[in-house]
Amino acid sequence: MRLGEGVEAAIHCAATLASVDGNSTMPGAALAEAFGLSPSYLLKHLNMLTAARILESVPGPAGGYRLARAAERITLLDIVLAIEGREPAFRCSEIRRNGPLRIDASAYVKRCGINAAMLKAERAYRAALAETRLSDIVANYAEEGDPRSFAASCAFVARHQRRQKSSSTKQA
Amino acid sequence: MRLGEGVEAAIHCAATLASVDGNSTMPGAALAEAFGLSPSYLLKHLNMLTAARILESVPGPAGGYRLARAAERITLLDIVLAIEGREPAFRCSEIRRNGPLRIDASAYVKRCGINAAMLKAERAYRAALAETRLSDIVANYAEEGDPRSFAASCAFVARHQRRQKSSSTKQA
Repeated sequence: MRLGEGVEAAIHCAATLASVDGNSTMPGAALAEAFGLSPSYLLKHLNMLTAARILESVPGPAGGYRLARAAERITLLDIVLAIEGREPAFRCSEIRRNGPLRIDASAYVKRCGINAAMLKAERAYRAALAETRLSDIVANYAEEGDPRSFAASCAFVARHQRRQKSSSTKQA
Repeated sequence: MRLGEGVEAAIHCAATLASVDGNSTMPGAALAEAFGLSPSYLLKHLNMLTAARILESVPGPAGGYRLARAAERITLLDIVLAIEGREPAFRCSEIRRNGPLRIDASAYVKRCGINAAMLKAERAYRAALAETRLSDIVANYAEEGDPRSFAASCAFVARHQRRQKSSSTKQA
């Protein structure tokens, strides 16, 4: 089982965007620079986060990305599903009815017990991911991260964020 | 996130082998037939289960596969790790230190909070998989599965299992 590498980039970018002031945005190129990623590689993942309404993409000269809602309302599960898709990790292909043991369809109305057990574990995984909010990640970084590293991140955000003319603010 | 298709085949085969009598074996070809799988495709996964000491491969005319220990002592986690490997689904590539924000190595001694949160969820997933024993899967199939389907499986096992001359039995 493996999550795509995009998940790491997506969570780091969302956590970075949680630190911009008010409704400011940050360009994708700056996010890519912060983590030493290729802008075109990152763009794909930023688009996925935007499609999932975790980020907003603002066009124009002061454009860029910002969180679409408060970091308290975004969980790691939201981000993982945006990048990896909503299908469970275990995808039952019903091999129980592939061979000569197959009987009529009425025998397979009930979900296979193996699939049920695998889905139960997936629910535990998703519940654990849903317990961690983006705001928890940011608070943990501020409290437990290396203070020099945290200060460097804050300075980077301050240097690259773009203030907006409009007075609209992030939806709380 | 996606588990390989081999996991489904591996669990079904192990559950089937849990039903053979005593120390009897079942040939890989019969297991492949039972689930409509190509024997060469299945062989790879049976070899992985054998390497992980979940199955034993017995050579010779009455050879085949059998469980290496009692079904009560094999969990879904054992099988998933045998097929998918032991690495966590989220593999942190430390992008936090890839860009211009990088400071000296002393800042990264502590695990990144994002990695820590992802690993916590993985522990929840693995704990849930470890809670389900192969014997639970078999008992559930006997109790809750379609009785015609269960009877067909039992008959298939009875027809294809190979009794051993030796009096050795599965390690309890």
